[in-house]
Amino acid sequence: MKNIHKMIVMLVIAFASPTLSLAQDPLPSWNDGAAKQAIVNFVRTTTDTGGTNFVPPEERIATFDQDGTLWVEHPVYSQLMFCLDRVPAVVAARPELKDVEPFKTVLSGDREAIAKLPMKDLEKIAVATLTGMTTEEFQADVRKWLADARDPRWHRPYPELTYQPMQEVLAYLRASGYKTYIVTGGGQDFVRVYSEQTYGIPPEQVVGTAGGTKYGYDKDGKPMLTKEPRLVLNDNDAGKPEGIHLMIGRRPHAAFGNSTGDQQMLEYTRAGDGARLAMLVLHDDATREYAYGPAQGLTDTKVGTFTQKLYDEAQQDGWVVISMKNDWKQIFAFEK
Amino acid sequence: MKNIHKMIVMLVIAFASPTLSLAQDPLPSWNDGAAKQAIVNFVRTTTDTGGTNFVPPEERIATFDQDGTLWVEHPVYSQLMFCLDRVPAVVAARPELKDVEPFKTVLSGDREAIAKLPMKDLEKIAVATLTGMTTEEFQADVRKWLADARDPRWHRPYPELTYQPMQEVLAYLRASGYKTYIVTGGGQDFVRVYSEQTYGIPPEQVVGTAGGTKYGYDKDGKPMLTKEPRLVLNDNDAGKPEGIHLMIGRRPHAAFGNSTGDQQMLEYTRAGDGARLAMLVLHDDATREYAYGPAQGLTDTKVGTFTQKLYDEAQQDGWVVISMKNDWKQIFAFEK
Repeated sequence: MKNIHKMIVMLVIAFASPTLSLAQDPLPSWNDGAAKQAIVNFVRTTTDTGGTNFVPPEERIATFDQDGTLWVEHPVYSQLMFCLDRVPAVVAARPELKDVEPFKTVLSGDREAIAKLPMKDLEKIAVATLTGMTTEEFQADVRKWLADARDPRWHRPYPELTYQPMQEVLAYLRASGYKTYIVTGGGQDFVRVYSEQTYGIPPEQVVGTAGGTKYGYDKDGKPMLTKEPRLVLNDNDAGKPEGIHLMIGRRPHAAFGNSTGDQQMLEYTRAGDGARLAMLVLHDDATREYAYGPAQGLTDTKVGTFTQKLYDEAQQDGWVVISMKNDWKQIFAFEK
Repeated sequence: MKNIHKMIVMLVIAFASPTLSLAQDPLPSWNDGAAKQAIVNFVRTTTDTGGTNFVPPEERIATFDQDGTLWVEHPVYSQLMFCLDRVPAVVAARPELKDVEPFKTVLSGDREAIAKLPMKDLEKIAVATLTGMTTEEFQADVRKWLADARDPRWHRPYPELTYQPMQEVLAYLRASGYKTYIVTGGGQDFVRVYSEQTYGIPPEQVVGTAGGTKYGYDKDGKPMLTKEPRLVLNDNDAGKPEGIHLMIGRRPHAAFGNSTGDQQMLEYTRAGDGARLAMLVLHDDATREYAYGPAQGLTDTKVGTFTQKLYDEAQQDGWVVISMKNDWKQIFAFEK
């Protein structure tokens, strides 16, 4: 059995490589510099059959945070926009919520008041909009929202806000035999709806914050899974390596993040033997995207915090910081 | 990104198929009959590009229970043998347990008394032998045990007790573009240690009963994950479809089990659209393996219960029952 499996993996690599070599540069949206070089060196050394850093194909795992690493997270996480947008439908189905906070504030449309809602109110909104329905109903809700919703700055569907340079990294790693995973603090069920189409990452390679489901039967006796307000995995901070162990069971060889929530995932990745790549996207481009995080003297933020402490750990532990401003030629595919 | 991914999948299938057709029969250890025919028909119809039952490669998911479906589960689950075998080492490290039940009974070696230990004592043994160590220490423990331990009947390492006909099904499905998963009531961390070598199934495709881990640092500041006695997923009964949703996020097109613990996984699989294969291994071969389960008038058992009710549901819902005695020419690779 093992040999057939290995043979298939080898065939994939053999056939993927020519595709890659046709393109002269696997990372055309990257400027030449330390960040680009670190990625290319990592791929070369871990796929060099005779080298000491060679990683067998079955162990090639790379993990990517999503919000702020693969796509835009400012001014607020896309999933929070989904939850807020779903409130009218939830209240239509449960009219008793109309005059109850925080639903009343959300329905008012008062952006300032909505922005000030405390975490416990956001949790109430999350429970009301992310649980109680079947997994299939939820998937349909997300699909419809993705088709209709537009982001407030570029007025495009959210999946278009992915970073072209990171899409190139995903494709380059996959063409080099790596399995690419999303490891996100966002909702696992939410991200899985669009991960394949947006990133070429299948649902089973999305690890995220996950609630439990409950198995049961509908009125016709057909099995169904209902989403419950019970947290199974909080995939942030220490929850990221814990989630990686739960869902993948292997330590990544490469990990990409952009905030303090990714710290433990990057530490865990770097602590393995051999060549291990840890990278952090620094949002320092106020013109083409956003600039935030107190490191490098940028503005502080609650969405995607990049602290000086994180920057210092990156320096000490050999993580590579990606400057959006300096390392990326192009940020979005829609820029021309 | 999507196109590259699809192209690779297509290449895998294109290259896997000739391998398959060279072998005249993908299931040589199976006797001709309804069970073998059901598998072959399922593969043909779901991979027939022009047919109404065609399943796109990325949706080809097949799930397999382990104990009693892929390998022997009698007289007791292998993992329970591991736990019992680990007790002396645990007591050596924690001498205060020496005179405490159930450890005292296990140390006595009195097989009859051990067999009578109630569930709550077995849980104490599980907590003591499966938690408290780092994930890497645990993997090393399991690896060592697998190398040393022999089963009580054939006196072979446990991984040799896999069913050759099921290994052929795994290989046949993979060669037909299916991703094969183990979905076991056994411990996820335990099964992942040997799944790749034994079944060609990588750790990330093993879903099992899982405890939480806790991220921390050792005395040198190196990150580590410690196994905790906190249940994250009880992957039995309704926990199987719930676990499939959590870990895979797609409904399987084929599922294989052998006991009441697999009922909901098979129902959930069959409830999907198009062709869905659900199969149950019936242990009715007392000579070559074991015969148990009250269905078909066999002896009742607590390990791998196959009730008359399960048999009736199989008949009503179109599941296919595999008779080890009649459907399998050969059971183990070591039989010659």
